[in-house]
Amino acid sequence: MSQVFSVDQLVDFMTRTYVACGVPAADARSTAEMMIEADLLGSDAHGIFRLPQYVKRIRAGGFNLHPNIRIERETIATALIDGDNAMGHLVMRFAAETAIAKAKVAGVAWVGLHHGNHAGAGAVYARMPLKHDMVGIYGAVGSANHLPPWGGIEMLLSTNPLAIAVPAHEEPPVVLDMATTVASYGKIKARAQRGEMMPEGWMMGNDGKPLLDPKRSAEGFLMPIGGHKGYGLALIIGLLGGSLNGAAMGRDVVDFNADAKSVTNTGQCIVAVSLSAFGDPETIKRDVDRVSREMRSAQKMPGVDRIRVPGEDSHRRHAQQSQDGIALPAPLLDILGKLADDLSIARLS
Amino acid sequence: MSQVFSVDQLVDFMTRTYVACGVPAADARSTAEMMIEADLLGSDAHGIFRLPQYVKRIRAGGFNLHPNIRIERETIATALIDGDNAMGHLVMRFAAETAIAKAKVAGVAWVGLHHGNHAGAGAVYARMPLKHDMVGIYGAVGSANHLPPWGGIEMLLSTNPLAIAVPAHEEPPVVLDMATTVASYGKIKARAQRGEMMPEGWMMGNDGKPLLDPKRSAEGFLMPIGGHKGYGLALIIGLLGGSLNGAAMGRDVVDFNADAKSVTNTGQCIVAVSLSAFGDPETIKRDVDRVSREMRSAQKMPGVDRIRVPGEDSHRRHAQQSQDGIALPAPLLDILGKLADDLSIARLS
Repeated sequence: MSQVFSVDQLVDFMTRTYVACGVPAADARSTAEMMIEADLLGSDAHGIFRLPQYVKRIRAGGFNLHPNIRIERETIATALIDGDNAMGHLVMRFAAETAIAKAKVAGVAWVGLHHGNHAGAGAVYARMPLKHDMVGIYGAVGSANHLPPWGGIEMLLSTNPLAIAVPAHEEPPVVLDMATTVASYGKIKARAQRGEMMPEGWMMGNDGKPLLDPKRSAEGFLMPIGGHKGYGLALIIGLLGGSLNGAAMGRDVVDFNADAKSVTNTGQCIVAVSLSAFGDPETIKRDVDRVSREMRSAQKMPGVDRIRVPGEDSHRRHAQQSQDGIALPAPLLDILGKLADDLSIARLS
Repeated sequence: MSQVFSVDQLVDFMTRTYVACGVPAADARSTAEMMIEADLLGSDAHGIFRLPQYVKRIRAGGFNLHPNIRIERETIATALIDGDNAMGHLVMRFAAETAIAKAKVAGVAWVGLHHGNHAGAGAVYARMPLKHDMVGIYGAVGSANHLPPWGGIEMLLSTNPLAIAVPAHEEPPVVLDMATTVASYGKIKARAQRGEMMPEGWMMGNDGKPLLDPKRSAEGFLMPIGGHKGYGLALIIGLLGGSLNGAAMGRDVVDFNADAKSVTNTGQCIVAVSLSAFGDPETIKRDVDRVSREMRSAQKMPGVDRIRVPGEDSHRRHAQQSQDGIALPAPLLDILGKLADDLSIARLS
């Protein structure tokens, strides 16, 4: 059983929750808005689902609730932001807005940050430049290490995600939002809960053999996409999101699932590229339309009913759920109800 | 049997070859220098090996030998370059140098181009910013479509490569240079020549089943890394290298192996990011060293003797071959000998 809520209801509930935890009202609302964007796009694992975890971290003193998020260093087309250990969504929103403002002047802008925190779905930030006729690119050091270097069994890398959004004219924007591993940890936990086995290729055991039982996930690690290539991608995204910004990378990375208190010094980066620097935006966007249509109308493999362009499903879902509301499953509603009771605020309704 | 030549000998031979075909001397030498960089890095398939193919295209009138490579549109941190159908290496070198010059001023620069051509190994260009304490990022629309959208069998995408180079202090720079497919077409041709089968995962048949016999490669297509993720990466790199720059993408792409004459309108992009915009370059590079060493010293899987950091092998190879010379296999020497005779120039010696 699930229950449907409007975006306003959900944003209001999250805002009230954060305020009850001591988050200033404007920051509470801003974080809630970025989180609901993830739900709208279909990234359920990065939306309201995360509220209890963030509350836990607030209560453990893991976030700075009165941060001074500021540009520490800048050029006309770059900025390094000190997130001051604020909630991750606030820092990333500031970073994305800074990148957009600078790209309006310089054509492109690259903004990096340190002392941020887990900020949810990369697509939320990569999509922000779209309405300014800009490409958005987001990279992050993930918030827990689940991936060893290729040939190793020591998990020194996270699933370091990459999100890239390209504006289109009439078609949905092309938005890639991917971890550099074949499967996410969330997917594996879900299989374990359902008592299902994993397909070969998701995880490998420390003995070098495929690991198929998700209940034994502690005996192995996630597999990178394309073997050594995915390892290389995860490493490079980590260097650009972490080392370049003076943020945690490699052994420094704090597992934010296991430790709600330590400063994570999370690093992320966002790039905005203005179409108008390269041509007439409408002409470029029409070509993106053309390419999307070519992909979709390509000759199909037997048994395939539809070819997707990355981001088109989440784009439609965003439009549909913005109008019809978001369905929350009963177990999540239970958890959110208890959280409300615990904070002595009104339940979601 | 192979024979070893110094870099100077090889650059001299390629320069003489191009001059004999009508390429102005400075352009001939510049192209030869960029090609030998690929050999030095171990990307044999993008070095002197390609000389006969480029000569064939010159003779077919496929290149403009007296191009006006120019900045068509620019901001302080971006440029769109019209390659005027010049040899690809010349256009990409100009693009990389433009990106470096602009990043010195703006902290970051993004340079795109249209009407370029196949320019060999991406790492050659991504590495150019390194000595300026900059990160280099290269993306390109590949020069032949071998990859369908996920679920399709119509090859509308190339293996669109991505190369990223990050400077280090004492360690080799971290350099990722990868196609977005599991295997390159070159690897598959080599297997066919040796009469060997391919491992599962390299190619898929149009029937949706794994294709293992490289002699039957025409009955299938290359597999993207990570399934739909690699398709997404190939598509996005193509949009950034192609559509953003008014270059060919999707059905527009000319197969430069099959057609030596048509204007390919190849698109590429290169980004340079100055470390000094984000912190003290030495501090950042020392952190890259630290991360590289962590990866290399990670606990290994049973049977693995060494963990590699992307680019370290090619870095060593570059240093070693710069000093000791480059070994060319006998069959390639034969081909180059005949090419020299054909052009009435002195053979390689």
